[in-house]
Amino acid sequence: MSRTRVHSLLVSSDGYAAGDHVTFEKPIGDAGALFGRFDGRVIHGIHGVEEPVTVDNALFSMWGQGVGAEIMGRRKFGPQTGEWPDDGWTGWWGDAPPFRTPVFVLTHHPRDVIEFDNGTSFHFVDASPEEALRLAQTAAGGLDVRIGGGPSTVSEFLKADLVDFLHLAIVPIVLGAGVRIWDDLAGLEERFSVESISTASGLTHQLWNRNPHHPR
Amino acid sequence: MSRTRVHSLLVSSDGYAAGDHVTFEKPIGDAGALFGRFDGRVIHGIHGVEEPVTVDNALFSMWGQGVGAEIMGRRKFGPQTGEWPDDGWTGWWGDAPPFRTPVFVLTHHPRDVIEFDNGTSFHFVDASPEEALRLAQTAAGGLDVRIGGGPSTVSEFLKADLVDFLHLAIVPIVLGAGVRIWDDLAGLEERFSVESISTASGLTHQLWNRNPHHPR
Repeated sequence: MSRTRVHSLLVSSDGYAAGDHVTFEKPIGDAGALFGRFDGRVIHGIHGVEEPVTVDNALFSMWGQGVGAEIMGRRKFGPQTGEWPDDGWTGWWGDAPPFRTPVFVLTHHPRDVIEFDNGTSFHFVDASPEEALRLAQTAAGGLDVRIGGGPSTVSEFLKADLVDFLHLAIVPIVLGAGVRIWDDLAGLEERFSVESISTASGLTHQLWNRNPHHPR
Repeated sequence: MSRTRVHSLLVSSDGYAAGDHVTFEKPIGDAGALFGRFDGRVIHGIHGVEEPVTVDNALFSMWGQGVGAEIMGRRKFGPQTGEWPDDGWTGWWGDAPPFRTPVFVLTHHPRDVIEFDNGTSFHFVDASPEEALRLAQTAAGGLDVRIGGGPSTVSEFLKADLVDFLHLAIVPIVLGAGVRIWDDLAGLEERFSVESISTASGLTHQLWNRNPHHPR
């Protein structure tokens, strides 16, 4: 069984999962505070960090498990809009992006594939969520597909009822502005079973699993 | 930094982590009830099970992350005692043991290495915990070493102060008999920081991280 999964979606108490004003200097806009308790090195396993092994880290370490492809929104790949400028931009992540799988970037402006030595490749597709998911599932070869964000992409896939599993971490901060995650999703919980757990850091993790009686 | 880790050690409310009377039919003796909430398929990642992704499964999935070798007691490998009989026994796990790394089996009766196609190999050593750990660390090549149990082996490594991380899951059952985990370990908590969390299933997970001021 191949799942479509969302991991480590950090959301403020007032429902913002990223900030406005994304620039080359600020990949997540004005919402950097969301990431204060998040150590990105743990996404490939708890052995990636020297800090104590916390419940937070254990839950964040699910990110890469059994994932064979990612789908991301254009804004996660870069701050540009419209036609791609000829600027040599290959993403925020340098020579070894952490994905290590094919990544499908949703954009109305397709361009050539970008490939890296570590197994990461960026494929730019002008596709609906359903079409992108089919492409990603084929590329994943039986493994799971991660919807990598940003929040508006996650929201789009939730609205299309294409998400099997969602790991969300509520950060006890109030942002006041940013990209909202819950708009137009009233009643979403009816399609899922939700397990909540709060940790010593103050984070509340929610694990949303699609109900068996709502198969896709 | 290479850690020595213990994972998914299931302990009853009255402190038993395995049962007496281990036989070929009962690998964990009379303590099978401890494993009622544990799905062994999750040890290599949450994608290994078709069930919902629960917090329990997420925590149990740490088992294989970044581990390059395991150390186990003889009783975990098989129910025999004394000299090894010529019975063709290669462990409980069939043709593809889940370890996928070198495994050092502590025994006073060394025998030849047993190797499997999936990367698992069993090395039988008559060694102190310190000596076994050195062998395992060399074999692990910079990755972490897991102390795989059973409980008396874990207890031995805890007494020798060789454990950096311990993930323990308290199962709300009363066994009344079995292999005790806490004997002769009074004050153990002074060497560790402990994070506890209880989940919807009724399990309480404890993450014991060695304190920085108690370096090995």
